[in-house]
Amino acid sequence: MGRLTVFTETMAEEVLKSTPTDNQAALREAKRGILDFLASAFAGREDAGIAKLLHAIEEEGGNPITPLIAQGKMANRRQAALVNGFMGHALDYDDVHSDVRGHPSSVILPVLFALASGREISGKSFLDAYIIGVEVMARLGQAIGTGSYLKGWHNTSLLGGVAATFAGARLLGFTVAQMRNAVGIAVSQASGLRVQFGTEMKPLHAGLAAQQAVQSIEWTQQDFHGTEMALDSAIGFLHVYAGKEADEAVRAALTEGWGKSWRIAEPGLWFKRNPFCSAASHGADAALALAQLNLDAEAIEKIDIVFPPGGDAALIHKRPKTGEQGRFSIEYVVALALLGQPFTLGNFGSAAVSADAEKLMRKMFRSNDADHKPDPQAIPKGRFTIVRIALADGSVHSREVCVPKGSPQAPLSDAELESKWRESAPDLEVAERILQAIRGLENSSLRELEELL
Amino acid sequence: MGRLTVFTETMAEEVLKSTPTDNQAALREAKRGILDFLASAFAGREDAGIAKLLHAIEEEGGNPITPLIAQGKMANRRQAALVNGFMGHALDYDDVHSDVRGHPSSVILPVLFALASGREISGKSFLDAYIIGVEVMARLGQAIGTGSYLKGWHNTSLLGGVAATFAGARLLGFTVAQMRNAVGIAVSQASGLRVQFGTEMKPLHAGLAAQQAVQSIEWTQQDFHGTEMALDSAIGFLHVYAGKEADEAVRAALTEGWGKSWRIAEPGLWFKRNPFCSAASHGADAALALAQLNLDAEAIEKIDIVFPPGGDAALIHKRPKTGEQGRFSIEYVVALALLGQPFTLGNFGSAAVSADAEKLMRKMFRSNDADHKPDPQAIPKGRFTIVRIALADGSVHSREVCVPKGSPQAPLSDAELESKWRESAPDLEVAERILQAIRGLENSSLRELEELL
Repeated sequence: MGRLTVFTETMAEEVLKSTPTDNQAALREAKRGILDFLASAFAGREDAGIAKLLHAIEEEGGNPITPLIAQGKMANRRQAALVNGFMGHALDYDDVHSDVRGHPSSVILPVLFALASGREISGKSFLDAYIIGVEVMARLGQAIGTGSYLKGWHNTSLLGGVAATFAGARLLGFTVAQMRNAVGIAVSQASGLRVQFGTEMKPLHAGLAAQQAVQSIEWTQQDFHGTEMALDSAIGFLHVYAGKEADEAVRAALTEGWGKSWRIAEPGLWFKRNPFCSAASHGADAALALAQLNLDAEAIEKIDIVFPPGGDAALIHKRPKTGEQGRFSIEYVVALALLGQPFTLGNFGSAAVSADAEKLMRKMFRSNDADHKPDPQAIPKGRFTIVRIALADGSVHSREVCVPKGSPQAPLSDAELESKWRESAPDLEVAERILQAIRGLENSSLRELEELL
Repeated sequence: MGRLTVFTETMAEEVLKSTPTDNQAALREAKRGILDFLASAFAGREDAGIAKLLHAIEEEGGNPITPLIAQGKMANRRQAALVNGFMGHALDYDDVHSDVRGHPSSVILPVLFALASGREISGKSFLDAYIIGVEVMARLGQAIGTGSYLKGWHNTSLLGGVAATFAGARLLGFTVAQMRNAVGIAVSQASGLRVQFGTEMKPLHAGLAAQQAVQSIEWTQQDFHGTEMALDSAIGFLHVYAGKEADEAVRAALTEGWGKSWRIAEPGLWFKRNPFCSAASHGADAALALAQLNLDAEAIEKIDIVFPPGGDAALIHKRPKTGEQGRFSIEYVVALALLGQPFTLGNFGSAAVSADAEKLMRKMFRSNDADHKPDPQAIPKGRFTIVRIALADGSVHSREVCVPKGSPQAPLSDAELESKWRESAPDLEVAERILQAIRGLENSSLRELEELL
C-alpha cells in the first residue's frame, strides 16, 4: 500500500511549494473572487436561515474568535465557518466553477477566514491559499467526473470540504504529513445530496463543508490520526464516490501541469448576475432575448426548453411552489423573464409562485437533445439551452444561448462586479473601505479586511 | 412528488406511536445494550484519541450541559455526542448488529444522553428511543443492502446518524413533520469510509454520526428546513448510496411488520468478548480451538483462512504494522491465538506487531469460497471462517466456526456481560451503582444514571 501514498503526498508537496499569487491573472481573479463572495454573503445577511443558525450557536456556546459576516458578532472557528459558508451560498448568488460543477468560494473562504482569525496571516498567504483551494476543488471535480453528481451528490459539499482542507493546511503552513492527515480526516465527512436543492440545507452544504475542513485542520493540530490513503486507496474517496480505479487519468487530473496556469483564472470563476442556479443562466438569457419581442403570454401555446442530456440535472423543480424552489427551476426563471418580472431577491424568496407564472409554466416542456452541436465556446463544455415559443398563430420564436453573461467567456467587468458589491453592502462607506482593503490585499495583513467584516 | 412523502412519513408515524419497552425481550436487551455500551466506553476512557478531542473542544469552548463519560467533565451536547461516540467505539469493543453490519449503540446512546441532559426524561422514554434507534438502523441496513458497504462506506456512520436522528426525535417528542425534517437534515451529513479502519477515524465515525444527529435535531428545533424526501426521492439517501429504486422491497424493509418484534432482540445485539472487529470473531474462535492442539509454530508450513465472498471486507489489513491495525486483520488475530497471546487491549494498541506474529502471518493466505455451505444458524447469515493449518509433516488441522461466542446465537450470559462491565469500570463501587441504575431504569428518571457517568 505504501507505493500509492505517493499520490496524496505529491499533491500535498505541490500545494506547499506553490505561490500562485506570482501569477498576475490568478491574483486578479482571486481578489475578484473575494469581492464576489462578500457581495453574496452580505446580500444574504438577513436570510431567515441565519437567525436560526445563530440561535443554535447561542445554545451551544463557544469562544468568540471569528467574525460572523455582517452580523456584528463573533463565534468559534467551526461555528463561523458553518454560518459564513451558509451565508455566502444562501441566495445562490455566489460564484460557480465549471470544472467543479459547484460553488468553490463559499466553502473555501469561510474556512480561510476562520483559520486566519487571531493569527498573523498576510494577505498574500491568504490569497495563495484561496487560489490553491479553488485549484484543488476544480481538479477534484475533473478527477471525480460527472457520475457522482448525476447520481445525486452535491459537489459544493462533496468536494468543497476536501479542497478547503488542502487550502487551510496551506494557510497554516502544515507539513506534508500533516496535510495528508488532515485530508484523511476530511474525506470521512464528505456528504451532501442534491435532493436538498430548494431548501435551506442546500446553502448549508457550503457551511457543513467549511465546518468539515475546520474540524479536519483542528483535529490534525491535536495529532488525531486518519487514513494516509484518502485519495489513493481503492476504497478511498475518489473511488468510492466516482467508482473509478486509481488510474493514471485520475492522477493526471489531480497533479499534471500543476502551477502552469491556475483554474481560478483558466477557465475562471463564474460570477453571477442573478440569484438562481447557474444551470438556469443560459435559458434565462435566452428568455430575456425573447422577452424583447413583447409576445402576449395569452397567445403562447407551448414553450419547449431543450438541454443536452444531464444539462438540467441541477434544476430539480419543474413545478416550483415557491420562489426559493424556483432558484432550481428553468420553468420559473423563463416565466419571470417572459412576464417582465425582474430577477430580484424578492422573486426568489419564500413567497408562493404567482398565478401568472404558474399558468405560464404549465405550457412548458423540457427535453434533452444529444445530437445538437452547441458553440465550441459553450460553458460548461457542451452546454446549451434553447427556449422555443410556439404561438397560437402558428409562428415559432426561438433563442439558443451557450455562453451566458457572467460566465468566464462573457465575464462581468470590474465595474459590473463592483456594482454587484455596492448593491449588496449595507452602506456605501463600508462598501468602499472593504473594496480598498481587497484591492491592496496582497500587500497588507489580512487583519485589515477581517476587521471590516 | 407529494405522493412519495408518505414513505418517510409512515416511518415517522410508526416511530412516534411505538412503546417497545412493552415488549419484555426488547426491554431486557436494551438494558444489556446500555451496560455493554458503558463497558466499552469506560474501557476506552484513556484511549489516546480522547485527550486529543478534549483539547480541540477546550479551544472551541461551549456551554457544559452533558457529561463526558468517565472524564469528570462536561461539554455541550454536540461535543459530548462526538466524544462519547468516539469513546464507545474506541477499542472496537462495542456491540454489533448483523442487519446493520456496524455498531449501533455507540452512535445512538451518546445522542440520547446528549439530548436528555438538563431535561426531564424518564428511563422508560430513554429505553423506548434506544430500541427504536436500533430498529431503524437495522431496517436501514436491510434496505440499503450490502453494496454500499462493499463499495467502501462504513455503515456505523452512514446509517447511524440517520437512525439516531429518528431516535432523538422520538426522545424529545417531535411531531411527524419535525421528525421528517430532522431526517431530511441528517441525510446530507451521512458519510464515513472503511479506508479509515485501523486509524483513530474509525471510532470517530461513531462520534461524527452522533454529532450529525444532534445537529439535525437542534437545527430542526430552530425550524431550519431540509428536504421532506430524505428516504423517498429517487435522488434521496437510499437511492444515492444503494443505487436502488424506491421500490416495494425497500419500503417493506423499512416499515413492514413494525413493532411485531424488535430487532434489538431478534436477531439481537452481538456483545463482544474481544476488542477487535467482529468479522474476525469466527476465525478467532477457530484459531483458539486449534491452539488447544499446541502445534509448534516453527512446524507450520501454511495457514489457509477461508471466508465466503465479501466476508472479510471489514478486515482490511493483511499485514498490519500495529496492534491497532490488527483489530482489522484476521491474520493478526489468528497469529495471537496460535502464539498463545491473549486478546488484551494491550495487544491491540499502538505498539508494533511482534516479530513472532509477523513471521507467522507471512504463512497465511486468505481465500473466498462461494460454494461452501455454512451452518444455517450462521451469523451473519451465510458467514463462516475456516482456519486450516498445514504442518511440515504433511498433516492438516482445520476448524470451521459459523456462530462465534458473543453473537446472538451464542450470547454472553448476564453474568458474563456484567463481568465485562466490572473489568471495564474504574472501581467496583461505581460499577455496582451504575449496574443498579440500569437494572431499574424503566422505573426511574434517566438523571439517576446520568449523574453516575
